[in-house]
Amino acid sequence: MRESNAAEAGRRRPADRVALECWGGVDLGGTKIEAVVVDRAGEVLGKMRQPTPAEGGPDEVVQAIHETLEGAASAAGLTPRQLAGVGVGAPGAVNVNEGTLGHVSNVGRGWTTPYPVAGDLGARVGRPVVLGNDVQVAVAAEYRLGAGRPYRSLLGVWWGTGVGGGLVLDGVPWRGRGAAGEVGHMVVKPGGARCGCGRRGCLEAYAGRASMERRAHKAARKGEETVLFELMRKKGRSRLTSSIWARALSLEDALATWLIDRAVRMMGAGLASAINLLDVEAVVLGGGLGTRLGPGFASRIHAAMRPHIFVPERQPPVHVAELGELSGAIGAALLAQPRMT
Amino acid sequence: MRESNAAEAGRRRPADRVALECWGGVDLGGTKIEAVVVDRAGEVLGKMRQPTPAEGGPDEVVQAIHETLEGAASAAGLTPRQLAGVGVGAPGAVNVNEGTLGHVSNVGRGWTTPYPVAGDLGARVGRPVVLGNDVQVAVAAEYRLGAGRPYRSLLGVWWGTGVGGGLVLDGVPWRGRGAAGEVGHMVVKPGGARCGCGRRGCLEAYAGRASMERRAHKAARKGEETVLFELMRKKGRSRLTSSIWARALSLEDALATWLIDRAVRMMGAGLASAINLLDVEAVVLGGGLGTRLGPGFASRIHAAMRPHIFVPERQPPVHVAELGELSGAIGAALLAQPRMT
Repeated sequence: MRESNAAEAGRRRPADRVALECWGGVDLGGTKIEAVVVDRAGEVLGKMRQPTPAEGGPDEVVQAIHETLEGAASAAGLTPRQLAGVGVGAPGAVNVNEGTLGHVSNVGRGWTTPYPVAGDLGARVGRPVVLGNDVQVAVAAEYRLGAGRPYRSLLGVWWGTGVGGGLVLDGVPWRGRGAAGEVGHMVVKPGGARCGCGRRGCLEAYAGRASMERRAHKAARKGEETVLFELMRKKGRSRLTSSIWARALSLEDALATWLIDRAVRMMGAGLASAINLLDVEAVVLGGGLGTRLGPGFASRIHAAMRPHIFVPERQPPVHVAELGELSGAIGAALLAQPRMT
Repeated sequence: MRESNAAEAGRRRPADRVALECWGGVDLGGTKIEAVVVDRAGEVLGKMRQPTPAEGGPDEVVQAIHETLEGAASAAGLTPRQLAGVGVGAPGAVNVNEGTLGHVSNVGRGWTTPYPVAGDLGARVGRPVVLGNDVQVAVAAEYRLGAGRPYRSLLGVWWGTGVGGGLVLDGVPWRGRGAAGEVGHMVVKPGGARCGCGRRGCLEAYAGRASMERRAHKAARKGEETVLFELMRKKGRSRLTSSIWARALSLEDALATWLIDRAVRMMGAGLASAINLLDVEAVVLGGGLGTRLGPGFASRIHAAMRPHIFVPERQPPVHVAELGELSGAIGAALLAQPRMT
């Protein structure tokens, strides 16, 4: 699972660069930690990925982040101490001002009490560390370097285990009081399906991969036929991954098709609501399912939004994210850079 | 219907003021035109109201706006030419850059082709005129001078014939590409009730006064008992006004109660969706129904939002608008002022 490489090593030699003109970025996920080192323009000079320690507490997790960052820096011919700064994108309850992370359910063995991730990592690295929300930083990266480049305002929708989101409004990430962008918890059906968050009728209750998996289990238990769990066993997985969903769709599995069709319909309603409220220029679709299902599904979501868009001559385009798996890590590195307009 | 007064004439004498330190504001509505003259602080120095010409085209409407503005200026001891500038808040398709207004269905005899309201009125007044969306300017006024004063970000919801909205984000009105704030056309029930806009399942299809009136007519035709239309006839009205709804509720009319309860429930879902997406600090509730039903219903909407709010410890308060009927005209005047932070 470890991988590490010097990106485009022939074209630019990191040793030529002034140190402190490079930034580190880390995407902390439930299954993996992804780290990059980027230059001022956001170009990736080195990267590394390793699994998130499955049973670790916050201390072990920060230790693993540090190792991954060292790998990425080394691939760029640097040490972490030579970086101008480091950004970390994380799920859960991020307190940007305090640099703490709490309410993490699926990283390591999880923790609830806020842990000073920025302070702990900063002490290990010897450089300033800033913390941000994983989806918000990924959306910011797509805005600056990816599918969002042509626009000043956009809604990013990260479609995976859950449905996350991030906003850029007039060139600036909009975070509200810290928790903006929860597009997955917009209500698409009052009193509807139970969501992982405990509420009812959220978009994520229909479109999140975890919710769809729960629904598929329920249907299978009732005797409904599906290839979903057979594919899961054959691939040796314990979860219905994005590629399993994609494969089941290509096999025209009836249950998978029904669940994804419903997810697309609800995405159409939820995202159209967001557009009617905010009138941003474009939607960028990322996340495991978003990038796996790709442009065909971006078009289907666009079509599902159309009947609900209030200004019909201004249907915002729906683009697939361009930076792929690295968007989170790159976005985290950009977060550490001095803010540019 | 005409009324005109010098506000607090004893306390400040407009004749003492430097001309060009006053601004005119006009709220163009379907039934009435409201004009004010305000000072730099937004304090009302004079006001006037008259009915919108029922059968007029754009030319007659602008003529009537001009007369109303003259009345307000006169009440402040001025002529329109002495104003530093004039703002007009209007319903329909406002093109802020061009100063045109199109797709107006319920002002005068209505018109579809964009008409240069700002240019025409500017030529009559001899001062610069700016045009804005009626709800957006009213929300901006509440932000600066009304219930929104304590906050940097808020969602304004104008609950009347329709359900309009406006956003202030970090102190700046957010207009998107010009059409932001359509909270009434957020989808609260995909495939649900038909909305006045032609779509299905919009919040306005459940909570807009016009939609509720259509639904009440349908129920009455089917023989359901209600005092709503009896109250309408007694009051000599042709529409179910906000005060008729309020009266029917106080009489515990079953149909009115059911319709308003449903509206409140859907408002809860729609506004919670907006909060989960934007995480603004507060909601300000205005419009005919919002101000008529008042704090009791602001509390009920707050309670209906609660089960859907993603960060439960950050329930944003719901306040009733404070500037009442003048919020639109005052907001239009503020629009004409040089932008201050």
